Amino acid sequence: VTDIKAERLLADLQTLAGIGGLANGGVDRVAWSAADVAGRRWFAERISEAGLEPHVDAALNVFGHCPGAVGPFVLTGSHLDSVPNGGRLDGAYGAIAALEVLRTLSEANDPLADRVEIVGFSDEEGVRFSVGLIGSLALCGDLNFERTADLSDSEGTPIDAVLAQAGREFGRLQDAAQHLSALAGFLELHIEQGPRMDAAGISLAVVSGIVGVHRERVRLTGTQNHAGTTPFPLRHDAGRAASRTAAQLRELVEGIDANAVANIGVMRFAPGGVNIVPGEADFTLELRHPDEIIVRRIVQAFEERLRTICDQDGCSAEIELLSWVPPARMDPGMSDITAAACDAVGQQPPRLWSGAGHDAAVLSRHVPTGMIFVPSIGGISHAPSESTADEHLVLGARALLQAVKRAAAQIK
Amino acid sequence: VTDIKAERLLADLQTLAGIGGLANGGVDRVAWSAADVAGRRWFAERISEAGLEPHVDAALNVFGHCPGAVGPFVLTGSHLDSVPNGGRLDGAYGAIAALEVLRTLSEANDPLADRVEIVGFSDEEGVRFSVGLIGSLALCGDLNFERTADLSDSEGTPIDAVLAQAGREFGRLQDAAQHLSALAGFLELHIEQGPRMDAAGISLAVVSGIVGVHRERVRLTGTQNHAGTTPFPLRHDAGRAASRTAAQLRELVEGIDANAVANIGVMRFAPGGVNIVPGEADFTLELRHPDEIIVRRIVQAFEERLRTICDQDGCSAEIELLSWVPPARMDPGMSDITAAACDAVGQQPPRLWSGAGHDAAVLSRHVPTGMIFVPSIGGISHAPSESTADEHLVLGARALLQAVKRAAAQIK
Repeated sequence: VTDIKAERLLADLQTLAGIGGLANGGVDRVAWSAADVAGRRWFAERISEAGLEPHVDAALNVFGHCPGAVGPFVLTGSHLDSVPNGGRLDGAYGAIAALEVLRTLSEANDPLADRVEIVGFSDEEGVRFSVGLIGSLALCGDLNFERTADLSDSEGTPIDAVLAQAGREFGRLQDAAQHLSALAGFLELHIEQGPRMDAAGISLAVVSGIVGVHRERVRLTGTQNHAGTTPFPLRHDAGRAASRTAAQLRELVEGIDANAVANIGVMRFAPGGVNIVPGEADFTLELRHPDEIIVRRIVQAFEERLRTICDQDGCSAEIELLSWVPPARMDPGMSDITAAACDAVGQQPPRLWSGAGHDAAVLSRHVPTGMIFVPSIGGISHAPSESTADEHLVLGARALLQAVKRAAAQIK
Repeated sequence: VTDIKAERLLADLQTLAGIGGLANGGVDRVAWSAADVAGRRWFAERISEAGLEPHVDAALNVFGHCPGAVGPFVLTGSHLDSVPNGGRLDGAYGAIAALEVLRTLSEANDPLADRVEIVGFSDEEGVRFSVGLIGSLALCGDLNFERTADLSDSEGTPIDAVLAQAGREFGRLQDAAQHLSALAGFLELHIEQGPRMDAAGISLAVVSGIVGVHRERVRLTGTQNHAGTTPFPLRHDAGRAASRTAAQLRELVEGIDANAVANIGVMRFAPGGVNIVPGEADFTLELRHPDEIIVRRIVQAFEERLRTICDQDGCSAEIELLSWVPPARMDPGMSDITAAACDAVGQQPPRLWSGAGHDAAVLSRHVPTGMIFVPSIGGISHAPSESTADEHLVLGARALLQAVKRAAAQIK
């Protein structure tokens, strides 16, 4: 039977981890950085080396398919960029596994190889600009670079200048004009990035969908005052109001839905003097759940609680919506295919919602899309110690091969 | 009867407020800045103009007394420096009122004038370096400039270079070598900087003492994690632990002593991403109370609460003591004198503890010291809108004259 080459898969993962690799075992391939461009060039060279045709588009998404193949294709892959000081598997694993799957089919002269395209997406992480998923959004026509002239990175460089520079570093651009119409579906293999599978001893999971993500910024205003001379009852302490709101978040969310998660990741008191009662406090709130109605319900309950606390502490609150990414449900047919693929490699995968965003969320709005997860040891991700057992990395790629073959076979 | 000239007092306050004055009505005379040095020169010129002798020491404390007087003196005054974007009365009021008091005695040829010295202290606020009260500490020999070579401002300039530059800007330095031994006592008139007197309709108060101030920095460590993929029960959220601690602070302190105040003025989560469970949280705690034992008791209860919360949230805490300034009790004899002085101008002053630090706290450890407060409108201080009714400013200076005369008359 046709099977992937486990050692080649692991060796490629290791080699790519060395591009932008850090002494601590992590990687730093922030989108369109020199290391990221070098990683993309390396990926394109592996495609050529396998006798396949590499193509690159304006976002520096790297594609590969059999020479002369015109589709329709099952696209498979993930992103090649990382967060700063990130792990070696987030994204890279799905792209390298896709390469290994197509190499395997091509080497076996399997006619299905002509129906498969692989991809290493750009800037899924959204570290450099204020938005992520830029590579997959560009492929799907959901993001038009001509309309993103106002996107600049933290150094003030506009996105088109960043892309032009990265394109020059990459070298000759081979035409891979927007070709969404050539795609019959998308399959993404990824690490879970959370602790559920590892904790439960699960080797593979079928992803039901990707949670909706609500983000808002809360600014509380009280009265800045001298902390030594202002008795408690005469204060309007914005820091206290913010702390009380944050302290009650978990219980508030759990009281509405046990599957929801929420986070306050940014918190700052102003003006920030040890002896000054904070006149302002800023924090961000993030909420995630598969069901938009639940997210709305939690947002509403949170805002009611915030109002109550502000009334008690004599503060006022302003809320600014930062973003709302709706939940993305995977295609039922693709989920059946990925479940059957896992079964073919001896696993009974549970169906899980992904708490993290993925390129699959973007593709799912355009073509039938499915996802497979492998466990993350200890649930650690976006950190140098991000890791998955070799056995699971190999198993995941085998399942991806089975899923890709099934999906390609179904193309009319 | 001898009395101060109200219009001259108010006019001088107005003129000094124009040195480093801001369009918003506030002042910016941070210690040893060009504006602060200009204010000191102006103060020394007013001393000369009144026929008195100005003297300046290495800290740029400006003194004045009758020509040829050698003490022992009752010293009176306050500081001339301000916080950035501060008010026009904090410190300046006590220095200008002292000038008006000595001018009044001198013009009346009162023999007590020879027993009075006035002062405009340097750097009470402690904005430029990490310590305050530098002027009064230098006068009292509690701070030796030769041993503070490691004190540098935020631009890295060492304190002796700052002093040398300010001395050059000030002009000819007149010798005012350390002369603590010539002082028989210290009297300071100051705005309350808090809301108690204004809220209660009180015009003058006798200060019983200055609260002790404990400051510490707390660093909580949890586990940085992906906020979308890490369920609540598997988190070690340092931000949550910090928020819960801060949220409970007021009730914890009030449960131990109703007169204590506490503040969390600085709060920061790290790494500070909207989608990252905070792995670290830093905050400062400040506690103030007249009684050291109560401060210790609150510190202990706070640390117990912190430990409990850390245990519950799976975090650890490190505490770093930033500073401990013990309470400073005013001299009972001087307090009787200030009370009698207030009575002489028709007021029955309550006795209040000061929640803010003052030069009087330093002097009280060396010579019999007393303080008088006038109200701050709305309790606002360290802000451009800091204000006190003219009527109270004049009344306070009249009471200071009475107190200075009584204290000078008692000098053996």
